[in-house]
Amino acid sequence: MDATGAPTGSVGLVKAQYFTFARDMPFALESGASLGPVTVAYETYGALNADRSNAILICHALSGGAHAAGFHSAQDEQPGWWDECIGPGKAFDTNRYFVICSNVLGSCYGSTGPSSINPATGSPYALHFPVVTVGDMVRAQIKVIDHLGIDRLLCVAGGSMGGMQVLEWAAHYPARLYAAIPVATTAQHSPMLIAFSEVGRQAIYADPSWQHGDYYTGGRRPDAGLAVARMVGHITYLSEESMHQKFGRKLRNLEQYGYEFQTEFEIESYLKYNGDKFTRRFDANSYLYVTKAMDYFDLSQPTGSLAAAFVNSVDLKYLVISFTSDWLYPSYHSKRLVTALHAVGADVTYLDLQSSWGHDAFLLEVETMTNLLESFLDRIAREAQVALPASVESTTTRLESGFA
Amino acid sequence: MDATGAPTGSVGLVKAQYFTFARDMPFALESGASLGPVTVAYETYGALNADRSNAILICHALSGGAHAAGFHSAQDEQPGWWDECIGPGKAFDTNRYFVICSNVLGSCYGSTGPSSINPATGSPYALHFPVVTVGDMVRAQIKVIDHLGIDRLLCVAGGSMGGMQVLEWAAHYPARLYAAIPVATTAQHSPMLIAFSEVGRQAIYADPSWQHGDYYTGGRRPDAGLAVARMVGHITYLSEESMHQKFGRKLRNLEQYGYEFQTEFEIESYLKYNGDKFTRRFDANSYLYVTKAMDYFDLSQPTGSLAAAFVNSVDLKYLVISFTSDWLYPSYHSKRLVTALHAVGADVTYLDLQSSWGHDAFLLEVETMTNLLESFLDRIAREAQVALPASVESTTTRLESGFA
Repeated sequence: MDATGAPTGSVGLVKAQYFTFARDMPFALESGASLGPVTVAYETYGALNADRSNAILICHALSGGAHAAGFHSAQDEQPGWWDECIGPGKAFDTNRYFVICSNVLGSCYGSTGPSSINPATGSPYALHFPVVTVGDMVRAQIKVIDHLGIDRLLCVAGGSMGGMQVLEWAAHYPARLYAAIPVATTAQHSPMLIAFSEVGRQAIYADPSWQHGDYYTGGRRPDAGLAVARMVGHITYLSEESMHQKFGRKLRNLEQYGYEFQTEFEIESYLKYNGDKFTRRFDANSYLYVTKAMDYFDLSQPTGSLAAAFVNSVDLKYLVISFTSDWLYPSYHSKRLVTALHAVGADVTYLDLQSSWGHDAFLLEVETMTNLLESFLDRIAREAQVALPASVESTTTRLESGFA
Repeated sequence: MDATGAPTGSVGLVKAQYFTFARDMPFALESGASLGPVTVAYETYGALNADRSNAILICHALSGGAHAAGFHSAQDEQPGWWDECIGPGKAFDTNRYFVICSNVLGSCYGSTGPSSINPATGSPYALHFPVVTVGDMVRAQIKVIDHLGIDRLLCVAGGSMGGMQVLEWAAHYPARLYAAIPVATTAQHSPMLIAFSEVGRQAIYADPSWQHGDYYTGGRRPDAGLAVARMVGHITYLSEESMHQKFGRKLRNLEQYGYEFQTEFEIESYLKYNGDKFTRRFDANSYLYVTKAMDYFDLSQPTGSLAAAFVNSVDLKYLVISFTSDWLYPSYHSKRLVTALHAVGADVTYLDLQSSWGHDAFLLEVETMTNLLESFLDRIAREAQVALPASVESTTTRLESGFA
């Protein structure tokens, strides 16, 4: 604990902020539909420097939100979703950088989504919410970055769907960032990824309590369907190896088979627990919209060439990370991306990290990630001539000696 | 077409047969529960030779049945599930061998299962049906083999759950068979396999029409949940590569994204079609029971040593087959099995076949499988001094010259 009572390295107590735009002129979406007003929830950690050059945008995955680090109250049991990587002296060092994380459009953590009130009707949008894309999510983030008065982000970083947003930023808004860190992600959702998304959606549709999305009033919610969707997801976030290590064939609270259909194996209990828990924090319609956005994501379009997507983005610095046991976003996705970036002559550092944690590795391989991210960020901050806060010199020295 | 009007190489019209046992004394199950009477549906193809030494038992997978080859009527559009491998001149050559396939206990294709009438109540068993194991399934098969007057099968063969039955036969009833052909299978369901099973079961439980299994009267059936379970299954039967080849990111009947939640991608349509189709042919409770039996399967118990399971089975001949792109029953499962068999000094032929079809390869790689199976069966028939029907010589010659 430091002097403020926060755990060492924590950003401490933080508060969500909200920026609303498209109050008068609606926000045009890729689909051709429009939406307004649009609110984006975001959090910031650390301080913006004088020339606003030390800002890093963190993009979250499917079920994440703007709350990436610190605690909302002293009673909070869980910190933000990437707290191990964001904070004083951590990978995204808040002593040096101004870190922003915003909730994606279509989600249910403060940004406008299907559970938000449709001003035209006074009721939640439900399925009247327009289908949004990763491109739409990023353009909503740009509104927040504009609002914060930041012309150019030092870096945009994120894993999984967060990585798709990183690539969208890099491909389409290269003037707005200096470096991109796509982790455990893809430039094009594969048919297997679409298949898993669709099964999750079908589990929600199959729940009669879903009521074609109109479940916000009336007390019945599609929790059963959403839980099944989440269980499918959790299988894909693990690896066979991590399942063997964590669960094996261990029984839960039993010496031998019970010969009935209650939860018996530890792995069953893990899935059921996480499926149920998810229904208390996530909105089923948001699950539909956010997975659909991921499925639509394909940077190789419209030309069919992934390299073509990056022809105007050759001056960015890229750190691409994949994990050997990630079978949901297997390393070959990252390798294809790296090939495309090399083809246009971009400056790319690529690491396929040895890990047994499957897709979850981007949240779990903290130590390896920290070393990598710190040294990459250090380099780009130097190259971009970012004026770091005065207090930082000693921190940097401490960290660098720590690596020796 | 041959003279009878059947397609060349087909066993032609076949009929299910039924054997009922445990009419007086109930059948004791591994769980300690008992069941009676028990009916097993089976089909046979080809002719049993005079000394009853040319019989081959084929074991089916999760959703299969006794109808492995031929047609039930002239109007049938689909032949039996392994018709490409069973018939005159095919891998399991019905000119040479007497081929038997029986439906597993707990299934819904004629053998006693949860949808069968419980004689104690006059209503379907539903969840009053006792949980059965792969061991129970095999002991029910033995009753049929006894009934057919066969002391020793030339071979037991099967893929996926069929392969588990093969291994159960080999490990526990070595005197009753000469050779074993486990294909794309495992001696121990892994936590990932259990996880996928459990998600399928949870999808069924989540369907209010399941009604804790009591859906046989009243008109509401858990089709939605069963369809989701099947969709999850279908993803696991494919490989990433086969999904790319078959579907890629192709849209179905659309030039561009529809920006709505209807089925848009070909892969979505494939899953939905197969999920829906499955509900017209399979019983949701049987899905629960059969997947549970697979999850319980673990030949390494009770000692923890897989080799120990085969110490009394060293005289059998084994042909073990896996497929490189099968990520549901990955090759390492077969390799572990082979290591255990080698450890006890068994005669094992092992092939890890190159295939892009994932787990489905055991149904699709017909040509490669046919070559392998024919030559292995030819060898064991010779070694076991099986008297083949007189008509066979010419067939063998034709086939062998075809391979040259």
